Amino acid sequence: MLFTDTIAAIATAPGAGAIAVIRLSGPDAIDFFSNYFSPYSKSILSELPSHTIHLGDVHFGDRVIDQALVSIFRAPRSYTGENVVEISCHGSTYIQQTLLRELVSTNRCRLAEPGEFTRRAFLNGKMSLTAAEAVADLIASESEAAHEIALRQMRGGFSNELAQVREQLIHLASMIELELDFSGEDVSFASRDELKRLLTNLKATLKTLLDSFAYGNALKNGVGVALLGAPNAGKSTLLNALLNEERAIVSEIAGTTRDTVEDRLTIAGVLFRFIDTAGIRETNDRIEKLGIERSIESAKKAEIVLILIDSQTATSSYINELSALLLKHTIDSNRCILVFNKSDLSAIDHQIIPKEFEYIELSAKEKIAIDQLRNRLTKRIQSGRVSTGSEVVSNTRHFQALHLALTEVFEVEKGLAADLPSDLLAISLRQVIYHLGEITGAVSTDDLLGSIFSNFCIGK
Amino acid sequence: MLFTDTIAAIATAPGAGAIAVIRLSGPDAIDFFSNYFSPYSKSILSELPSHTIHLGDVHFGDRVIDQALVSIFRAPRSYTGENVVEISCHGSTYIQQTLLRELVSTNRCRLAEPGEFTRRAFLNGKMSLTAAEAVADLIASESEAAHEIALRQMRGGFSNELAQVREQLIHLASMIELELDFSGEDVSFASRDELKRLLTNLKATLKTLLDSFAYGNALKNGVGVALLGAPNAGKSTLLNALLNEERAIVSEIAGTTRDTVEDRLTIAGVLFRFIDTAGIRETNDRIEKLGIERSIESAKKAEIVLILIDSQTATSSYINELSALLLKHTIDSNRCILVFNKSDLSAIDHQIIPKEFEYIELSAKEKIAIDQLRNRLTKRIQSGRVSTGSEVVSNTRHFQALHLALTEVFEVEKGLAADLPSDLLAISLRQVIYHLGEITGAVSTDDLLGSIFSNFCIGK
Repeated sequence: MLFTDTIAAIATAPGAGAIAVIRLSGPDAIDFFSNYFSPYSKSILSELPSHTIHLGDVHFGDRVIDQALVSIFRAPRSYTGENVVEISCHGSTYIQQTLLRELVSTNRCRLAEPGEFTRRAFLNGKMSLTAAEAVADLIASESEAAHEIALRQMRGGFSNELAQVREQLIHLASMIELELDFSGEDVSFASRDELKRLLTNLKATLKTLLDSFAYGNALKNGVGVALLGAPNAGKSTLLNALLNEERAIVSEIAGTTRDTVEDRLTIAGVLFRFIDTAGIRETNDRIEKLGIERSIESAKKAEIVLILIDSQTATSSYINELSALLLKHTIDSNRCILVFNKSDLSAIDHQIIPKEFEYIELSAKEKIAIDQLRNRLTKRIQSGRVSTGSEVVSNTRHFQALHLALTEVFEVEKGLAADLPSDLLAISLRQVIYHLGEITGAVSTDDLLGSIFSNFCIGK
Repeated sequence: MLFTDTIAAIATAPGAGAIAVIRLSGPDAIDFFSNYFSPYSKSILSELPSHTIHLGDVHFGDRVIDQALVSIFRAPRSYTGENVVEISCHGSTYIQQTLLRELVSTNRCRLAEPGEFTRRAFLNGKMSLTAAEAVADLIASESEAAHEIALRQMRGGFSNELAQVREQLIHLASMIELELDFSGEDVSFASRDELKRLLTNLKATLKTLLDSFAYGNALKNGVGVALLGAPNAGKSTLLNALLNEERAIVSEIAGTTRDTVEDRLTIAGVLFRFIDTAGIRETNDRIEKLGIERSIESAKKAEIVLILIDSQTATSSYINELSALLLKHTIDSNRCILVFNKSDLSAIDHQIIPKEFEYIELSAKEKIAIDQLRNRLTKRIQSGRVSTGSEVVSNTRHFQALHLALTEVFEVEKGLAADLPSDLLAISLRQVIYHLGEITGAVSTDDLLGSIFSNFCIGK
């Protein structure tokens, strides 16, 4: 047993609900809570089997706090790998707080820190570090895409594959280190060919994963979209047309509450975040040359840049100036979509549009071709380098470790090419192993775990 | 089986948490959900015993929505008395909404209406109507006192006692009605003495319960306190002194969120609501004769009236005028406590205080005797006619039915005294039985149930 104390926390969302769940974990959890719970079946909680549920009274001293359903899970068959008790009580905040306070007052348990249940699950070997991190992502996920990435990562994801490669590298590294004992003698226990083959495969895997990060990160945190355009081009109307459809979809789901949709839009399970939309809604009377200079900063931060142009006033010279401006600010044309608005009032001469730009004609006011724009947005994501079904990196920490691992792989390869002595080769190889271990959690420090789990909610 | 359809709802508080619980109830609930859940134990959910918990994947089509812990409860050993499934999933709002939407999309279940689980529990005979109502009170309870009343009511309370008396009355009423078949003959199957004795006891019970309502209602909804006083008497300072202590106590409970304490104060488990405190915080430069006239309305609504007086300026004539003003507005002196503030600056001449007033000397600014005022407030409640441990009525609907029952008891007694014929006696007796039945739920209409359960939260 790594831990001897029992931790307690409210595991359900804060506030009043029909029911709330308080979770206890620790070697003593079941025996301890057994003193404060009388099952109506007259049995004794601490004598009951794992994975069973019992109705009874939770009481402290003479005072019954609630009638509750209590679930027990015996180590190691629990979330944390320890003995776990889940108290499903009536969901008033008063009962939740009183129960938690009374439990802690016994001095046989203490309040859990953020993420402490999952931290224990990791340290007790119930899940890898990437899986543990995915739990937090799963709880924070707001879209189908973010949810899929988190769920896949929780269920293994690329972590398992890296762990296997790492095992093979550890074996080879040991062999190479063994050669050191025989230095002077010309022996090689580790097959250089095998190492080369392994490194080639690892390199390909690492590159694919690193490439997936931009996509994965966008799916997880939402795809940034900047909406640029001159005053009166119809930016506000277009944004409303996009968002209002979303609002209608959202309100169909009865019995659920949600945050304001404001400037977020979910299309086909992907979250799009409109950047700096406050500026879009402002009326701006100041005449600007192209009307987009003030939005250049938001365009730089965005994955997709929508440039809204009034079809009635679109001229060849306007578009050329625009093109030059984007170039000047190094905003790649393949990140942009030219949106010719007011298509109902004026047709656009397709000749004036430079070949490198994707474009669409629509009317925000008349709601013409809004759906086409939505489709274009999702296509932008799906046409990314990563096809559905492959592994995606969405976590900055993983990205950094993968990047460091790849850098060290290059070092080992250079060493092999230069026929470096075993000891120097082994040093770089141990670095690759170290960085791969950082991802899976085979290598972890208190600081690292602290920074990961402090971002969790309490109760998880 | 009263119901054949399966209902579903999120049972935990809205928003994201570590976990959330979705609840299904209906004869088909376990079989239905079995199609969408694969336990890791490879067993089949619909074949597993009641009160057991299973880890596995929730999936719709090819898509796994979540890894969840699923609890099953088999009829009649469940909250509703029906087959019940509780899905404990990861608590993102996305997962909650998606699970619920997918479940409903199967067309084998529908969204539950507010309170529908508890309504089914009542209609399936799992709890009395008062117990069902207490569930809503329990979830809404914000203080120890409100919690105690709700919990006691949920566990039987006065409902059991009334149900017993009602059974006895039904027996006697039948006997009296039997006499009708022998009208003309001078028989009496029902002992008039027994009836009289029963009515006397019932009358005492009803009176005690009716008397407890003012107290019970105050405990449940909070005790209204009006704070009156001239400008500069120190109303705002006193309120802050009272509330700040509360805030300090509240912040001790880590890991819990709560609503603003603003003008609510919990002392010894009882909630005190300060009425119209917005007016207290306002500075009021207009000179008023006694400075309390504008607060008379809030004093009329309050159970306790605190009248704050500056000890430095308190004169016999001021207090006499005050007394006259209260009398004029029919604010009973025994609802009032005179609070002489700034006791550190000036002592008060006790001779000038009329005997009918309770009073206290303190300094809001120097925090002298604030605790004494808190004690006085709780004493006011505890010295109510109802002693701790006895049954308390806190529900307006119960109060009305009890009142109607008592009125009809008087009618029966009058009838007995006037030696009324059996048929007339039986009519009033049936009315008593009817009104008692309204409380326990033995008599209920769809309208009544609709109005009770529509105030519940969804998921309960």
